[in-house]
Amino acid sequence: MSDFISDDNPSWLSDEELATARRRLPILYVEAVPVRVDGLGKITEVGLLLRGTPDGAMTRTLVAGRVLYGETVREALFRHLEKDLGPMAFPQLPASPVPTQVAEYFPMPGISAYVDDRQHAVSLVFVVPVTGSCDPRQDALEVTWMPPAEALAESTALEMENGRGTLLRAALGSLGC
Amino acid sequence: MSDFISDDNPSWLSDEELATARRRLPILYVEAVPVRVDGLGKITEVGLLLRGTPDGAMTRTLVAGRVLYGETVREALFRHLEKDLGPMAFPQLPASPVPTQVAEYFPMPGISAYVDDRQHAVSLVFVVPVTGSCDPRQDALEVTWMPPAEALAESTALEMENGRGTLLRAALGSLGC
Amino acid sequence: MSDFISDDNPSWLSDEELATARRRLPILYVEAVPVRVDGLGKITEVGLLLRGTPDGAMTRTLVAGRVLYGETVREALFRHLEKDLGPMAFPQLPASPVPTQVAEYFPMPGISAYVDDRQHAVSLVFVVPVTGSCDPRQDALEVTWMPPAEALAESTALEMENGRGTLLRAALGSLGC
Amino acid sequence: MSDFISDDNPSWLSDEELATARRRLPILYVEAVPVRVDGLGKITEVGLLLRGTPDGAMTRTLVAGRVLYGETVREALFRHLEKDLGPMAFPQLPASPVPTQVAEYFPMPGISAYVDDRQHAVSLVFVVPVTGSCDPRQDALEVTWMPPAEALAESTALEMENGRGTLLRAALGSLGC
Repeated sequence: MSDFISDDNPSWLSDEELATARRRLPILYVEAVPVRVDGLGKITEVGLLLRGTPDGAMTRTLVAGRVLYGETVREALFRHLEKDLGPMAFPQLPASPVPTQVAEYFPMPGISAYVDDRQHAVSLVFVVPVTGSCDPRQDALEVTWMPPAEALAESTALEMENGRGTLLRAALGSLGC
Repeated sequence: MSDFISDDNPSWLSDEELATARRRLPILYVEAVPVRVDGLGKITEVGLLLRGTPDGAMTRTLVAGRVLYGETVREALFRHLEKDLGPMAFPQLPASPVPTQVAEYFPMPGISAYVDDRQHAVSLVFVVPVTGSCDPRQDALEVTWMPPAEALAESTALEMENGRGTLLRAALGSLGC
Repeated sequence: MSDFISDDNPSWLSDEELATARRRLPILYVEAVPVRVDGLGKITEVGLLLRGTPDGAMTRTLVAGRVLYGETVREALFRHLEKDLGPMAFPQLPASPVPTQVAEYFPMPGISAYVDDRQHAVSLVFVVPVTGSCDPRQDALEVTWMPPAEALAESTALEMENGRGTLLRAALGSLGC
Repeated sequence: MSDFISDDNPSWLSDEELATARRRLPILYVEAVPVRVDGLGKITEVGLLLRGTPDGAMTRTLVAGRVLYGETVREALFRHLEKDLGPMAFPQLPASPVPTQVAEYFPMPGISAYVDDRQHAVSLVFVVPVTGSCDPRQDALEVTWMPPAEALAESTALEMENGRGTLLRAALGSLGC
């Protein structure tokens, strides 16, 4: 998954060491569904990242990345939101460390709804209201905002990789969308 | 509970009718634990309302009130937060309608941890970050902010009525405090 | 909703009094999605009730009913599960009183995804594993068990009334289905 | 933590490799609070493991262990419950993969309420009803069952290591105990 690449080389873990770990251990991730809410907290828009894949196609995805050694889940969530949405997004991080969903990605298909051919990843998924302006950085081309009904549509799910259409529906379903 | 009195006389239900309903039906409430959070969403302070009771004592309580006919849970939550904390509190209402806790108050003791001698009330309890300034109105004298550890202390629980010390601990416990 | 009728006449509230209350107060309900799970807790089947409507059509619905005065949410949940699934269903009631979803039904359309032309009802919705055999009683003709994918299909949602197809998806989505 | 030792040497990861990973990556764990519930799902007893520490003291702990590569969270939960409670405990695994609590253990104190001097571990914590008889295996001497009030007492918290008294309270608080 291209959204995982940006974490590959923290100074304290070489590429090779991380590659080895990925074949031996489940790797802990955080993912976020950015949303805009009205004054009563109701979701009005869902933000999806638009990305180019290595083979030139376009795909939609969520904010996602690895939790590093020594980093709290909240810190990882904040770091990846800033990385993908820019420094002016002003996300409202959840007061609870309990995620909205837990997604288990396996390299082998059929174990769960989610696949990742590079690793076994377990992802804590949060729905995060953002109040500022989003300025995608790195390899994301754009953040597209759409009403919840459009985010939940079959056509949107088809544009998302690795089972994330299912994950998006599960996360928004948890919130009663 | 004094915090319930302010709802007693909406135009569409006379005092007498409400009194009758309270002896026949469970009444739906919302309650909120106002908190202040840091940039990572971690709770730094918990707000408790200080109130005078009819017999002249002081007691600590939560934001609470009835859900009216035709009103959504979010609208009720917003209305009671504004009533108790003032119009400049700027609460961040939850994106999910699923509460942090459900508290069941009974007039007869021993059924649950929560009692209310006036009625059988079922309360949806939310922890709500507030970002503005609080200016208690109505019968609340003051909002007292304290660190989570102090809010969870035995001495604080003793100042709260109707089992709400237990409720506060359960709500904050849900968030990992 | 036909599933609400069975509660209409408890001895402590006349039909007329309940009818009045329903025009003045939100009425508290519980609903349950019965499921069968495998040894690891994973949902293998979802149970939907098949009912005849007053005008002779068939509709699918959930276990649902009112919480009575003096009754806990758990007791209400157990009573309605027994009423709709029979005494040998052996439901595993949740250890937590916090529901999987909260559904708000309004008589006026457009306020939420759920409608009930008789009343404003707020429903605490639980997903409940049942381990025994189900023998529907009262006005339910049958319990139909189906895999989660079928329960989540558009065609199933169309057979459910009052927005409950949406509710079923939200409840199962919360559990990662 | 002695409860972590039993996982140290799966064939696919040498002791040395695991030791290296533990200094470089957060390690994913599951933990379970075994409970007994009554017919309405209410917790009547909480089960704590009694263990001898390497220096001869006794300590109370939860069911806990690592999630292995290729293993789902549910499978890991089941495996560790069976390991610690024996094959006849018949745990009722949760239908939802979302945990009751997330506990973050750090080797360095002060980052969270939980410490583990061997590693940075992130633990998904579940409250799990067990219906059979428990026969502790391995290094656990005994499972002690106690009412929730006793499990939540200060004296019990003092017998638990690494902040797990706090975790137990948070987990049971989530369930309204």
